[in-house]
Amino acid sequence: MRKMAEYAESSRQQMREAELPVTMRALRLTGSGLLFDARYPRPAASAGDAVVEVTLAGVCATDLALVDGYKGGYRGVLGHEFVGQVVEAPGQPEWLGQRVAGELNIGCGECSLCRRGLGKHCRQRESLGIVGRDGAFADYLRLPLANLHRVPDEVSDEQAVFVEPVAAALEILEQLHVAPSSKVVVLGAGRLGLLIAQVMALTGCELTLVGRNPDKLAIARGWGIEGIEAGQAHVTLGADAADIVIEATGAPSGFALGRELVRPGGTLVLKSTYAGESPPIDLSHIVVDEIRILGSRCGPFAPAIQLLASGRIRVHELISAEFPLVEAVAALRRASQPGVLKVLIRP
Amino acid sequence: MRKMAEYAESSRQQMREAELPVTMRALRLTGSGLLFDARYPRPAASAGDAVVEVTLAGVCATDLALVDGYKGGYRGVLGHEFVGQVVEAPGQPEWLGQRVAGELNIGCGECSLCRRGLGKHCRQRESLGIVGRDGAFADYLRLPLANLHRVPDEVSDEQAVFVEPVAAALEILEQLHVAPSSKVVVLGAGRLGLLIAQVMALTGCELTLVGRNPDKLAIARGWGIEGIEAGQAHVTLGADAADIVIEATGAPSGFALGRELVRPGGTLVLKSTYAGESPPIDLSHIVVDEIRILGSRCGPFAPAIQLLASGRIRVHELISAEFPLVEAVAALRRASQPGVLKVLIRP
Repeated sequence: MRKMAEYAESSRQQMREAELPVTMRALRLTGSGLLFDARYPRPAASAGDAVVEVTLAGVCATDLALVDGYKGGYRGVLGHEFVGQVVEAPGQPEWLGQRVAGELNIGCGECSLCRRGLGKHCRQRESLGIVGRDGAFADYLRLPLANLHRVPDEVSDEQAVFVEPVAAALEILEQLHVAPSSKVVVLGAGRLGLLIAQVMALTGCELTLVGRNPDKLAIARGWGIEGIEAGQAHVTLGADAADIVIEATGAPSGFALGRELVRPGGTLVLKSTYAGESPPIDLSHIVVDEIRILGSRCGPFAPAIQLLASGRIRVHELISAEFPLVEAVAALRRASQPGVLKVLIRP
Repeated sequence: MRKMAEYAESSRQQMREAELPVTMRALRLTGSGLLFDARYPRPAASAGDAVVEVTLAGVCATDLALVDGYKGGYRGVLGHEFVGQVVEAPGQPEWLGQRVAGELNIGCGECSLCRRGLGKHCRQRESLGIVGRDGAFADYLRLPLANLHRVPDEVSDEQAVFVEPVAAALEILEQLHVAPSSKVVVLGAGRLGLLIAQVMALTGCELTLVGRNPDKLAIARGWGIEGIEAGQAHVTLGADAADIVIEATGAPSGFALGRELVRPGGTLVLKSTYAGESPPIDLSHIVVDEIRILGSRCGPFAPAIQLLASGRIRVHELISAEFPLVEAVAALRRASQPGVLKVLIRP
């Protein structure tokens, strides 16, 4: 019986695979820049893997930084924020047809970091669309099944594409205790800053969002979050104003303002990564003021999905534009313009 | 009756004050360098203050950094590690004759930081022998009574002079949870590094002390603390080896080694302050590796006194030399030589 079931499954699998095309459309970052490729090889799944047909993908500041040379020369398909449907999962038919979001880091599974549960920091890791693995601005992508999270029906595709950045915002709460009485300042009202501000608002903390663009601050105000313009931050808030400052400007200049606003003994959370040099830092001042600096990157998917499903995190106001995959180059160009928030790409 | 008691006390006070000399000996940092002054004005106490006759004082790296120009030009009597006896305490006769150690920061008491209990970080603060207030390399010093801690008989003068640096080492445990299973590396086997290593050893953590001088590492080995030479640290420990690295080298180069040894998600504690420029720091790497950087300065006196009293922290091995106050300039010169640990100054 088992053999027959295996045979039937194997046939189904082969039939399904036969239906999938050999090539696909993809936005590649090459040595000479961005290239839309209409006939890029489609990935195939090995045991433990899935091939996901991408439904919708989001453009992130990291994509733009990679185009600018961050990480010193990633070459491959860009994109790591996505929602899609599992179309290939060898030996795991229960995954076929599932709507999923996916974590982007794939550790080697064998090094001391992976063995200590720090796989997302594995030195040999691949990261979807960032390091060593083709990403989501394509018809299909490949990820380990272990990286996938089912997306419930209450979460639309337009919401689900935000699971990865919401998880990145939640990572701050994984790392740091933010108390209801904490005074928190978020620097940067961009794609990530607005999500971080929403996550912080859930704690009940005394929250101020600092941004440059009045339209983006107005979005935050619509969520009941106080926003002030960057030029006014120092005057309005004053030095030593915040217990916690979260730097999400995406620019080196954010550090100095954050350093000025955080009180002695307070925490400066860094969420920005960028190509190019870091600002100078006076370490003796960090010691004397007993400042905590906390780097923060990818976060937990399950609570992100739950907060989107329950409506506690809102994302529709953040969608600036949607492009078809064939116009992906234009999508990234749009995303890099000032004032633009999330740009979506639909295969 | 109350009036009579007040009168009697007032008389005693006047008599005692009359016994104190008008001038004293002191080691001053002036615009043209160190100067031993045999006739410097003795401080007098106001209400809430005490005058302490210094029994023994210790030379710290901060004293040497101040001579090198750290803090941009402190002028006054140096020294902030001391034990002494209260000889003047207006209206508080119960303090007279008490043997005390003293916390070095004096906040304004009125600013928002002081009102939030962050007086040691007050922007208008004075710090004994560091900012705006004459220090302990003198016959007498003046401090608020609120800064003083009684030293029990079980703690000798030679131990008590270490209360301030032991408290500074304990500050790390005030700020950071060090678990018995944590892997901890202390960089720097100097005055402070050896005390920090002892404090860390109390947690039961897996501890390695990294230093340059075999004699200092041998002292640590005598306390059951494993030490390795700085040149071997990378080879012996390997990258990403430590959950927590404590940088106490007193030199800018310590940061890079600490950054290399601390695992992703780990904590790099900074204890060194120094004159001159900080090393460059790649903030994007801090974000991607989710590193915590934690500045750490002065700490709690009461547990420091208790750990010295119970013998859990040992300090006699750390005393390299003792000089009379009249030879204080020579004492600082000795303290700045390689391989020298704590130099004491006895008025």
